[in-house]
Amino acid sequence: MSNQSDLAETSRLEAFSDGVFAIAITLLVLELHAPVLAEGRQLWPALLHEWPQFAAYLASFAVLGIMWVNHHSLFRQIERTDRGLMFLNLFLLLWVTLLPFPTSMFAEHLKDESTNAHVAAAVYSTNLTLAAIAFSLIWWYVLRNKLVEHEMSRPQVRASVLRYSLGTLFYAAMIGVSFLSAKVTLLIAFLLAIYYAFEQVRTRD
Amino acid sequence: MSNQSDLAETSRLEAFSDGVFAIAITLLVLELHAPVLAEGRQLWPALLHEWPQFAAYLASFAVLGIMWVNHHSLFRQIERTDRGLMFLNLFLLLWVTLLPFPTSMFAEHLKDESTNAHVAAAVYSTNLTLAAIAFSLIWWYVLRNKLVEHEMSRPQVRASVLRYSLGTLFYAAMIGVSFLSAKVTLLIAFLLAIYYAFEQVRTRD
Amino acid sequence: MSNQSDLAETSRLEAFSDGVFAIAITLLVLELHAPVLAEGRQLWPALLHEWPQFAAYLASFAVLGIMWVNHHSLFRQIERTDRGLMFLNLFLLLWVTLLPFPTSMFAEHLKDESTNAHVAAAVYSTNLTLAAIAFSLIWWYVLRNKLVEHEMSRPQVRASVLRYSLGTLFYAAMIGVSFLSAKVTLLIAFLLAIYYAFEQVRTRD
Amino acid sequence: MSNQSDLAETSRLEAFSDGVFAIAITLLVLELHAPVLAEGRQLWPALLHEWPQFAAYLASFAVLGIMWVNHHSLFRQIERTDRGLMFLNLFLLLWVTLLPFPTSMFAEHLKDESTNAHVAAAVYSTNLTLAAIAFSLIWWYVLRNKLVEHEMSRPQVRASVLRYSLGTLFYAAMIGVSFLSAKVTLLIAFLLAIYYAFEQVRTRD
Repeated sequence: MSNQSDLAETSRLEAFSDGVFAIAITLLVLELHAPVLAEGRQLWPALLHEWPQFAAYLASFAVLGIMWVNHHSLFRQIERTDRGLMFLNLFLLLWVTLLPFPTSMFAEHLKDESTNAHVAAAVYSTNLTLAAIAFSLIWWYVLRNKLVEHEMSRPQVRASVLRYSLGTLFYAAMIGVSFLSAKVTLLIAFLLAIYYAFEQVRTRD
Repeated sequence: MSNQSDLAETSRLEAFSDGVFAIAITLLVLELHAPVLAEGRQLWPALLHEWPQFAAYLASFAVLGIMWVNHHSLFRQIERTDRGLMFLNLFLLLWVTLLPFPTSMFAEHLKDESTNAHVAAAVYSTNLTLAAIAFSLIWWYVLRNKLVEHEMSRPQVRASVLRYSLGTLFYAAMIGVSFLSAKVTLLIAFLLAIYYAFEQVRTRD
Repeated sequence: MSNQSDLAETSRLEAFSDGVFAIAITLLVLELHAPVLAEGRQLWPALLHEWPQFAAYLASFAVLGIMWVNHHSLFRQIERTDRGLMFLNLFLLLWVTLLPFPTSMFAEHLKDESTNAHVAAAVYSTNLTLAAIAFSLIWWYVLRNKLVEHEMSRPQVRASVLRYSLGTLFYAAMIGVSFLSAKVTLLIAFLLAIYYAFEQVRTRD
Repeated sequence: MSNQSDLAETSRLEAFSDGVFAIAITLLVLELHAPVLAEGRQLWPALLHEWPQFAAYLASFAVLGIMWVNHHSLFRQIERTDRGLMFLNLFLLLWVTLLPFPTSMFAEHLKDESTNAHVAAAVYSTNLTLAAIAFSLIWWYVLRNKLVEHEMSRPQVRASVLRYSLGTLFYAAMIGVSFLSAKVTLLIAFLLAIYYAFEQVRTRD
């Protein structure tokens, strides 16, 4: 368990995670389908009509992109890894790899007048919430097990984890919003990605 | 054949394997399909009705995730590589990349009343068994050719390989269980992934 | 914020980008479909008839390949990275990952007699233009923030960015050409990739 | 152009290539489709009936796997890289990424009684031949430009390139065999992969 091999282990964990993020973000495009046109129909209005799939694509791209940036910031601070961290990381990657599925379902039902739009929005929001919870668990785990260097007291650790979990609350709130308006939910997902872009983990200030 | 270049070779073998694992685990999502709804039908019950595809997704995600963790542990101990190890590793990756296919077929037939559910379960179990055999072959090969540092006697090597192959027996047993119940087979696949999560290769204790 | 960790950060940014480029360029093949033949029909003429999808495949492969080479040249000169660069890089990757979609739509409509061929060509050209703009923004950003080592004066920086943006103008012109001829647009996309292959960023001459 | 940065460049070229190989070899599985069964039909005979897709999968997996191993051996000897090598490498990757398409078409027509089976086999063989030519071009290029260390005379270089191109002849011959028997062609593709597994580039003996 020399420092050397532990650093190596972290780097392979990051490489694997990078791979999964890169693939998930690129697979999103497979859920985009060119409109099937009847004879003599125009392509342009048909494309505009399909705006929900582009909006959902953009939101999920932003979400996964920011998640990757934050994963990156997080793991730059982590100095050692262990089996527990590996499994928490896999738990996070589960929700990362799954995202193209609710994204596609969300896009398909976004304009439905029925409750289906709300259900699709809620499933999408739940996926994001679970990913945010996974991030919080990782942060709590690495602080508690001193896998990052820090000299925080136990209450300070708790405070740091709580601050880090703030975003999770917003995602959880999105599940509620889903039942009010699917379109507003998608907008919030996009705006939260922007928020997360500026929110950053810090052990020292 | 300096040590330097051999280490480099190992790292590229790991990078390639990481890529394949990362892609296979992410491609699983492409086998998930949102339910196609008739006019006026509800999304939520249709999603619940399709639980087999989510269960199969989760099982295969766990299987591939744990396989990656164990591949990682295994190769951290391997100090040099040669052509033989490369081909054994490719043999393992063959079953890794194939897994999305039986996963999807398993999900499709899980609720069939006919023998098709049993056949799909057996094909899935056979895939996992072959992957486990590949792991055992790699372990046996690297011990025999001293690609890991160890001072085990020949009988100790045999014992280590046998211990390592225990999981293989469980997977082989799954093929038998397939003909009793497809659903129990899927559950065992998931539980075995959890078992493998705690079972770890060690040359020294 | 030691030099060490900043270099590490650059390398993970490159690894993630490499992953996205590699996946996008490989996913293009999924948009190729073997012709569906009626009983007794010949495969060879059917394949020839589908030349637009192969032409579009080749053009997009060349575009993404050259983009990767230039991304590579660019980041070899970049010594440090920050959040701003990460997001500009994500903005670039957005257009990289999206490309398989307009490629497939372009191929489908290339031989249409209607305006749909022009619209598909214009969407394709817009995607390439936005990617070129992203490259220019990155170059401007890293020069301005001294993320590459250089001793250029402010006007020299402006001149370098302008020179670098020349290709962008050509891509923008492609949007105009789209409304004249879809086929010529595709040819230009391919030729511009060749042009970009020889155009190279340099801070020192 | 210090040695340091050139080594770095080689490693990013390898990382990108590894990514493309890993993705192409994993995407093959997307061309496998579970048989669609009519009510009351058996899964097992339907699977056996679809043996061509599994045979084609196995052959292409072996081909891409061995190509990766040889790419790996080749680039371990290459010490520096330049733009020319990058484009030759992209030319190779073009045929690597394309392979899932002819593989799928080959599998679909393998059992056809018509000439379509021969055409599909010839397209598949042509893809492999072009990949082999790309390998030979790379070997010739790096020897001529001293991107690998060697002290061969000009005729020795020519001899080494010729020896390296032997496999290419076999692949070219496969195009001819395609018009005799599609099934034999597939078998040869698989056997050639095995042959290539033992054929290895060497600058020194």
